[in-house]
Amino acid sequence: MLGARRLLGALRLCSSVSCPRPRATAKLRVRDALGVQDASGECVTVQGWIRSVRSQKEVLFLHVNDGSSLESLQVVADSSFDSRELAFGSSVQVQGQLVKSQSKRQNVELKAEKIEVVGTCEAKAFPIKYKERHPLEYLRQYPHLRCRTNALGSILRVRSEATAAIHSYFKDNGFMHIHTPVLTSNDCEGAGELFQVEPSSKIKVPEENFFDVPAFLTVSGQLHLEVMSGAFTQVFTFGPTFRAENSQSRRHLAEFYMVEAEVSFVESLQDLMQVMEGLFKATTEMVLSHCPEDVELCHQFIASGQKDRLEHMLKNNFLIISYAEAIEILKQASQNFTFTPKWGVDLQTEHEKYLVRHCGNIPVFVINYPSELKPFYMRENEDDPQNTEVA
Amino acid sequence: MLGARRLLGALRLCSSVSCPRPRATAKLRVRDALGVQDASGECVTVQGWIRSVRSQKEVLFLHVNDGSSLESLQVVADSSFDSRELAFGSSVQVQGQLVKSQSKRQNVELKAEKIEVVGTCEAKAFPIKYKERHPLEYLRQYPHLRCRTNALGSILRVRSEATAAIHSYFKDNGFMHIHTPVLTSNDCEGAGELFQVEPSSKIKVPEENFFDVPAFLTVSGQLHLEVMSGAFTQVFTFGPTFRAENSQSRRHLAEFYMVEAEVSFVESLQDLMQVMEGLFKATTEMVLSHCPEDVELCHQFIASGQKDRLEHMLKNNFLIISYAEAIEILKQASQNFTFTPKWGVDLQTEHEKYLVRHCGNIPVFVINYPSELKPFYMRENEDDPQNTEVA
Repeated sequence: MLGARRLLGALRLCSSVSCPRPRATAKLRVRDALGVQDASGECVTVQGWIRSVRSQKEVLFLHVNDGSSLESLQVVADSSFDSRELAFGSSVQVQGQLVKSQSKRQNVELKAEKIEVVGTCEAKAFPIKYKERHPLEYLRQYPHLRCRTNALGSILRVRSEATAAIHSYFKDNGFMHIHTPVLTSNDCEGAGELFQVEPSSKIKVPEENFFDVPAFLTVSGQLHLEVMSGAFTQVFTFGPTFRAENSQSRRHLAEFYMVEAEVSFVESLQDLMQVMEGLFKATTEMVLSHCPEDVELCHQFIASGQKDRLEHMLKNNFLIISYAEAIEILKQASQNFTFTPKWGVDLQTEHEKYLVRHCGNIPVFVINYPSELKPFYMRENEDDPQNTEVA
Repeated sequence: MLGARRLLGALRLCSSVSCPRPRATAKLRVRDALGVQDASGECVTVQGWIRSVRSQKEVLFLHVNDGSSLESLQVVADSSFDSRELAFGSSVQVQGQLVKSQSKRQNVELKAEKIEVVGTCEAKAFPIKYKERHPLEYLRQYPHLRCRTNALGSILRVRSEATAAIHSYFKDNGFMHIHTPVLTSNDCEGAGELFQVEPSSKIKVPEENFFDVPAFLTVSGQLHLEVMSGAFTQVFTFGPTFRAENSQSRRHLAEFYMVEAEVSFVESLQDLMQVMEGLFKATTEMVLSHCPEDVELCHQFIASGQKDRLEHMLKNNFLIISYAEAIEILKQASQNFTFTPKWGVDLQTEHEKYLVRHCGNIPVFVINYPSELKPFYMRENEDDPQNTEVA
């Protein structure tokens, strides 16, 4: 937000010297222009891509978007501007005065004094069509252009904000960031099939390895992070991980980013759950406050559509139930599961979904799993080391 | 820094209720404990690893480090504590009162009331020895323990701070973060030999690929970032990149992290150089202000040892010279180069080093390279598109 503040400072200066011409104007992101309160003719320059053109008798309305927000900035130009050049998709630099808008649809608009077409766009050849809502499957064919659509723009802004929020949360809470290695000789707890790596000249040739040992792409930074937690009390990593699974599900992409953290000197499981709940809430709050309209759009495209689901989660404490309690809840459910819930058997996705609904759509930590279901290195439960079934 | 502020808030509260016992104490990082001004008996708990033990008649001095800073916290314990258990390398939790130190060597020290040994350390078996300064080559054998040494701890803290500073700089300046893909079918401008990727079960078998096309590890996110800059005016990436070079130089590791940024609507090369100079200075300033003593130690181990080199760079503007000027400077140098400087030939490391020294140890941008030395996609110089030799 420093950038915005600096720019607004520059704006105030510009308008106090009563805009002599020619003059240098403040370059403003669309997001920052839209956020200006009580606009009163500040001289600004905005750069971006034309998202819509609407021609009226004496006046031309453009919407210019530069990717900084879902909302575009309305540019008002008089009829002296050539509307043929100002086509959907072309990139422009607009200089003018930021004024209060007459319409209720936006707070501010830019009264154009100079519009420079930086790059033209041929409507026929351009695969994204004006006023059309293209399905994601169609956009998939145009990876080099789809980021100019609302849907992909929103996803990328949410991801960027979430990434920044994750780094901030850990830093603010005294965690040290570790770049755990991507190339590794470890197969971390057999989390999935591995990708192996060799120089492209040697890939299909059965000779010695490039490194002294076979090298794989990491499936988890956990092992390296555990080493670090022997010297630093709080560490985290947030890097790419890989699975060589031919998965068509929503679970594992071949490449995905994962947050992992380790805390030393932990006294209870609650301490760890607090870190996870804090991370989730801080990240969600930051994303919601910075780009609420992007979150809304992502919901429409991706999630099942519960609008206030995130706010609901933010307002309530996450729940903690034991594995034994979870099995009891599932056994008493009226729902028919594909996999019958049974003590000693791992929970399926259908079970997890039911538990979350049962708990009022709040995230649920399930603790005290039977030891046979846990990896060998996990600590034994304090209450019942044998994890016998509750009567 | 939020974490520190919160903890100090908790401390003040604790000391105002005059420490009834038993009571909950504030858990403090060593870094935060060392930063407490005018300590006056606040009840705190510190956790970490013992770095030194010094036994005097009536009193025992421990230094406890938790990886949050190079400096350790001095713990003062009376003779009722068993010094045999409190050995170098063991992990402890110390509860006590934070007081002003009598010694000039530190501001505060922790008067121990309770010391719990969480993990013991057997001196004979432990490869890191008390009071010994191990060479890096020796520590290389113990990747799981070397992060407990001063040298590696400092490097990791500097890296963590620099990572946070890079993310902050770009965010504060309106850049959007993009996770450019690690797996890619592109060979980005032939930047070096590629690593190819296949599932480990198929690596040496000449059959079809896991993906539809051969997949490589990225050598640069540039291409994907350029696509994004067609929808967002300022983007950056900071991720792992790979080179399958058997390089023993300091240039390319097989895996390394790289910062890349793209700015749309740029009008001059100066705009780009300003971003790079700003990034370098903001990052350096943040690292120097958060962990100056770590930077100092890294200099001793890694760089050539000019202590105030970084401060010097921060105080001065980076320089911009043309390729033609650079060649002229090199031709007039009294130094004998392995590669004779000649117009039309690329600059070597020895040339670059000379230029930096010549310019007063300030980073130098060399611009307007001859077009034959530039990749095909680079913009032509405005002053002299043919890049003819200056007479």
